[in-house]
Amino acid sequence: MTKPLQSPALAAFVGATTGRNMTNAAYIAVALGIGAMVLSTMDAAHGAAHRWIVALLWGCLAFFVVEWGVRVQQAARKRRAAAYLLSGRGLLDTASALAVPAALALGVEPRTAWLLAFTWALKVIPGVPGLRQLRRVLVVEARPLLSVLVLFLLVLFLGSVAEYALEHDEQPATFGTIPAALWWAVVTLTTTGYGDVVPITPLGRLVAACVMISGLGVFGLWTGILATGFAAETRRDNFLKTWESVSRVPFFASLGPSTIADVTQMLRTIDLPPRTIVIRKGVPGDCMYFIASGEVEVDLPGKKVRLGEGAFFGEMALLGNSLRSANISTTRLAKLLVLDLVDFRVLMARHPDLAQSIDAEAQRRAMENLT
Amino acid sequence: MTKPLQSPALAAFVGATTGRNMTNAAYIAVALGIGAMVLSTMDAAHGAAHRWIVALLWGCLAFFVVEWGVRVQQAARKRRAAAYLLSGRGLLDTASALAVPAALALGVEPRTAWLLAFTWALKVIPGVPGLRQLRRVLVVEARPLLSVLVLFLLVLFLGSVAEYALEHDEQPATFGTIPAALWWAVVTLTTTGYGDVVPITPLGRLVAACVMISGLGVFGLWTGILATGFAAETRRDNFLKTWESVSRVPFFASLGPSTIADVTQMLRTIDLPPRTIVIRKGVPGDCMYFIASGEVEVDLPGKKVRLGEGAFFGEMALLGNSLRSANISTTRLAKLLVLDLVDFRVLMARHPDLAQSIDAEAQRRAMENLT
Amino acid sequence: MTKPLQSPALAAFVGATTGRNMTNAAYIAVALGIGAMVLSTMDAAHGAAHRWIVALLWGCLAFFVVEWGVRVQQAARKRRAAAYLLSGRGLLDTASALAVPAALALGVEPRTAWLLAFTWALKVIPGVPGLRQLRRVLVVEARPLLSVLVLFLLVLFLGSVAEYALEHDEQPATFGTIPAALWWAVVTLTTTGYGDVVPITPLGRLVAACVMISGLGVFGLWTGILATGFAAETRRDNFLKTWESVSRVPFFASLGPSTIADVTQMLRTIDLPPRTIVIRKGVPGDCMYFIASGEVEVDLPGKKVRLGEGAFFGEMALLGNSLRSANISTTRLAKLLVLDLVDFRVLMARHPDLAQSIDAEAQRRAMENLT
Amino acid sequence: MTKPLQSPALAAFVGATTGRNMTNAAYIAVALGIGAMVLSTMDAAHGAAHRWIVALLWGCLAFFVVEWGVRVQQAARKRRAAAYLLSGRGLLDTASALAVPAALALGVEPRTAWLLAFTWALKVIPGVPGLRQLRRVLVVEARPLLSVLVLFLLVLFLGSVAEYALEHDEQPATFGTIPAALWWAVVTLTTTGYGDVVPITPLGRLVAACVMISGLGVFGLWTGILATGFAAETRRDNFLKTWESVSRVPFFASLGPSTIADVTQMLRTIDLPPRTIVIRKGVPGDCMYFIASGEVEVDLPGKKVRLGEGAFFGEMALLGNSLRSANISTTRLAKLLVLDLVDFRVLMARHPDLAQSIDAEAQRRAMENLT
Repeated sequence: MTKPLQSPALAAFVGATTGRNMTNAAYIAVALGIGAMVLSTMDAAHGAAHRWIVALLWGCLAFFVVEWGVRVQQAARKRRAAAYLLSGRGLLDTASALAVPAALALGVEPRTAWLLAFTWALKVIPGVPGLRQLRRVLVVEARPLLSVLVLFLLVLFLGSVAEYALEHDEQPATFGTIPAALWWAVVTLTTTGYGDVVPITPLGRLVAACVMISGLGVFGLWTGILATGFAAETRRDNFLKTWESVSRVPFFASLGPSTIADVTQMLRTIDLPPRTIVIRKGVPGDCMYFIASGEVEVDLPGKKVRLGEGAFFGEMALLGNSLRSANISTTRLAKLLVLDLVDFRVLMARHPDLAQSIDAEAQRRAMENLT
Repeated sequence: MTKPLQSPALAAFVGATTGRNMTNAAYIAVALGIGAMVLSTMDAAHGAAHRWIVALLWGCLAFFVVEWGVRVQQAARKRRAAAYLLSGRGLLDTASALAVPAALALGVEPRTAWLLAFTWALKVIPGVPGLRQLRRVLVVEARPLLSVLVLFLLVLFLGSVAEYALEHDEQPATFGTIPAALWWAVVTLTTTGYGDVVPITPLGRLVAACVMISGLGVFGLWTGILATGFAAETRRDNFLKTWESVSRVPFFASLGPSTIADVTQMLRTIDLPPRTIVIRKGVPGDCMYFIASGEVEVDLPGKKVRLGEGAFFGEMALLGNSLRSANISTTRLAKLLVLDLVDFRVLMARHPDLAQSIDAEAQRRAMENLT
Repeated sequence: MTKPLQSPALAAFVGATTGRNMTNAAYIAVALGIGAMVLSTMDAAHGAAHRWIVALLWGCLAFFVVEWGVRVQQAARKRRAAAYLLSGRGLLDTASALAVPAALALGVEPRTAWLLAFTWALKVIPGVPGLRQLRRVLVVEARPLLSVLVLFLLVLFLGSVAEYALEHDEQPATFGTIPAALWWAVVTLTTTGYGDVVPITPLGRLVAACVMISGLGVFGLWTGILATGFAAETRRDNFLKTWESVSRVPFFASLGPSTIADVTQMLRTIDLPPRTIVIRKGVPGDCMYFIASGEVEVDLPGKKVRLGEGAFFGEMALLGNSLRSANISTTRLAKLLVLDLVDFRVLMARHPDLAQSIDAEAQRRAMENLT
Repeated sequence: MTKPLQSPALAAFVGATTGRNMTNAAYIAVALGIGAMVLSTMDAAHGAAHRWIVALLWGCLAFFVVEWGVRVQQAARKRRAAAYLLSGRGLLDTASALAVPAALALGVEPRTAWLLAFTWALKVIPGVPGLRQLRRVLVVEARPLLSVLVLFLLVLFLGSVAEYALEHDEQPATFGTIPAALWWAVVTLTTTGYGDVVPITPLGRLVAACVMISGLGVFGLWTGILATGFAAETRRDNFLKTWESVSRVPFFASLGPSTIADVTQMLRTIDLPPRTIVIRKGVPGDCMYFIASGEVEVDLPGKKVRLGEGAFFGEMALLGNSLRSANISTTRLAKLLVLDLVDFRVLMARHPDLAQSIDAEAQRRAMENLT
């Protein structure tokens, strides 16, 4: 069991598959598979290209089965197969690989069975950026959100009982039972308003108007709570990411802890791919940059200077020259810390020593470039 | 009248009923009763299981009547019967117990009378968490909310007069009176848009477009006000809950009042049920915990250590070790104060003495565990 | 012209009418008049009570004409008739008084002419609380709101041109011209969605989906801007109202200006009518009150103590006793400054001298009550 | 090629066209052209005024072609033709000038070809104020917005697969394929709710209710994120604009940097056209003004005093006199810095020296006016 893989291509595939949640191949397989599944429900397409669609579906399924198999095997070699299978990722992988075959094996009609290919789309969830952040907001604000949800359900229930009482003699077909009235209430309270079920008695319309206005109120509360939670979470997230990066910049290392806390609250981290132009010559500048990791290249007249981890640039724009004086671009993947002019000014006012350091470094650099 | 209860089961029921608003039995009774009431409006279900539904309804009603009776009696023993009956809870209990019997006694048709079982659903309101918070936001922001409501009603009225004038010759059936036009306006202004009443003249459509856009504006104002009020209320609520808990942690008792105010603004309280895992070994940590009440158990190799009220844990993650080193779980209901890494750093910068205390305690604990 | 009024009732009417925008009589007249106008559009009501409705309309009109006449005359006596007539209030008064008679004089059919009674409803606008605040938010945030509006109109226009191009061959009746497509676009972009005009071609539906999602985006921007503006405005408004009141409380007069600025940012003003219970005995308290104007009565056992302008009460709850120890109610219209427990604690930490003053006053008061 | 322009009118046109994005003539041309294009789609108008509409369209087109030609030529003289043509403005200009002629040249039916006149409307985009601000919010909040978008698309997809499975046997015409179900899902999730496609099975309605409630949740998240981003961006933008202006006011030049940072965060810039009344005599005042650029005229009894760049006015209202004592209006385009009473008080508390300077200047000015 120690040498189950011979081919280098397969080894590369196994490596990529084990390391990341979604390889590029997996994204393509999801897109193709979902596309084929959607086409298979359209009679015209189904008739014209039946074979191709089925081939594509089986191909994608094979991909996900192999991917799942490789991951199970790799996890088993580390004796963590159970942990993998019970993790969120593992469950999604298992569903993607086994849902359709299981349905086919159970004798479900093929076109219906292939609908289970929707599980493939779920595989992208763990890769969505910022999802963790959303979940934290929902957790922290769970109590008020829950209370708004209960209010929503109460209005839903009371509204539908009232409409049932007021309308079921007039419109037995649409308001004949409370579940039917609940359908009306949810369509109305979410302001969707299909118009398939509409109260017609004056009193029924009055109640409906109250339900609609309550809908706006509930919605406003909901949004207000989420906005509040999101503001707090954004502040927290930025701080965490930045604190980590600030500690890598030697320039800040000499500062006392209270200045570092101040600086961290002001900086923003950005990740840039290689060969990206950070600063364009002649453009007005309103921020400076610190290099947390990676490298940039300054395109000075006659020579090119490289700045590595811990260096800073763009400070000229904040010290008086409003136009950028050179093109600066990344040479490889770089994590930069951005200090806006706004915060730079506040920081300088509070920590004059920091201003002196930046000034000294800028002069030193100017001298160096002249000689 | 001093010994009205003999059976221990009844005594337990009375105790539970008196102490809390909603016992678990009450929640089940509400769910069953509402379910039966909804089923009773569906002819199919009504035909098939008429007897069972009626039995269930009468059973739930009996429960609420008994609950109400016990509460009235208990309140009467404390000579507070009137206070109870006039309180919000008391009114809801009375309505739950008496609305249906009163309707039946007055000769209302049974299926209609049982609709009054909707009062049972209202009993859950006092138990909704965060409802007090919502009410405070509505009270504090009452003035601007009221002013938006007046705007809303004005747009509603002006829009419907305009549409009545423009459309009632073309569509006498739907825009024939101002109340009919008001129905159109409320359906439109809340962006529900059933489509049962739609202007067809060019001028009528222009007015309708303005009403719709006003609807967005009103909604935006409404949400903006609620979001603002909610942010302030959340801050206030957290502070109150936390201040109370902080005073129970001896670690903070030695700090000056300004540090305590600082700390309080940063901590968050969470309530955890018994046997909940707070910290999982090997997971990256970004917060530490103080125990305001309750107890936790640290699962160290070879032994289990219990930490009680006033202790703290999880500080290692904030002092450099990013991975949690042991499983920690609650042994009973615990109220914990959470200090996020973000705030921990800011706090340490402002109060170096606090950092030393935590450091010293962490070292002492490490020594203790070694010996 | 100096003694135009003889009857005291008329003099009282003139006084009230001149002083305030809307007397209670005016509110009643607006309500009755609008009600009669709405009824006059309903054929059933019109038939049954034609005379009464017409009498009510004429009565209300007479009221507004007299009110307008008195105001013009009073303004003329101060030589400010022109200023009054050109002010917002004056224009509304003039419209209320003259719109219907002018229409009748011009030979408009009576039932149509009486629709102009909608001008009466506009008279309540100047009295809406918080309207000035809303207007300020709209002014301060005018630029971003305008830019969102332009985006909205652009999406509207581009969406309707696209739908016209894609749908007008398929559905000439509903998408036959760009104005018709604009109607579809506004109904869709505001998420109203009547369903009277719906794209049916696949490409048309794709464009429609983009328009709908843009609608959500535009709406989110709109709400976000208003929420931001509202938060700033609320802060500003509270400060202004409170600063004025704080200056009337002698207790704060001895503090330095920076403490006053701190205090002002924490206090909230409330206006209470006479005979309102501010504090109820036995209820847990979480704030204290300062009296900016008016008077309150403390209901102590055996005697009643009155506290006037500049006094404070309810401080016990913040100094340790969490339950209120006496009923306190207003004796006349009072403006109170509320200090929440949250802010009390922060304030005490920052200004220990303030804590001592409150403590000393509380002890002095306790002594006084004992003797 | 150095003297291609002889006529002074043409020279003026060229000057205006080169300097600004949209001249007033261009705005008129856009309005007329779009109007004519809309009319050309209406058969009635088309029949009655066909010649006029076509003439107007050709006239506007000629204007845009000439404008584009002039700009290309001017750019070519500075050897920047390529830069201009590839810039956003250049691409919009090119599209406005060439889209319709190109379509006509390719043999497209004229009425269809003229629909491309919608490109003219896009020319107003670069001139929308605050658009840059909106774009920055979208960029900074891109990650969470993207994550909400992915959630939205997932709910869309899962909802439509579920409805297809549940409804396609019952309603083959409307839920017969997944793309058809997707149409239903997007109409529902955006709460538009046309009502052309509505689930009718109980399970289908349950799924639809979940989709609608998810729609509210997604919308709330979306708005919350935008509100958060907008609040941060507004703060940043105000600071930048104000910092620049503060540096032009000599009064602030003597202050230390930390006071300037404080002041900057409190001031708001406003731009006023010539002959605008800034302060009206007798009106209560709640702010003072600093002149960053331009000039104002104080209308004192008997004489008029002009205040230029760097002066301030309106401070009386903040120092005790609540009513403005003179009319003050701008004489030319002025940029003023507004200091609200709120912030004035806080500033005075923190910087007593600033209060003294303002007081001294106010007294000096009073003396000067008396002599």
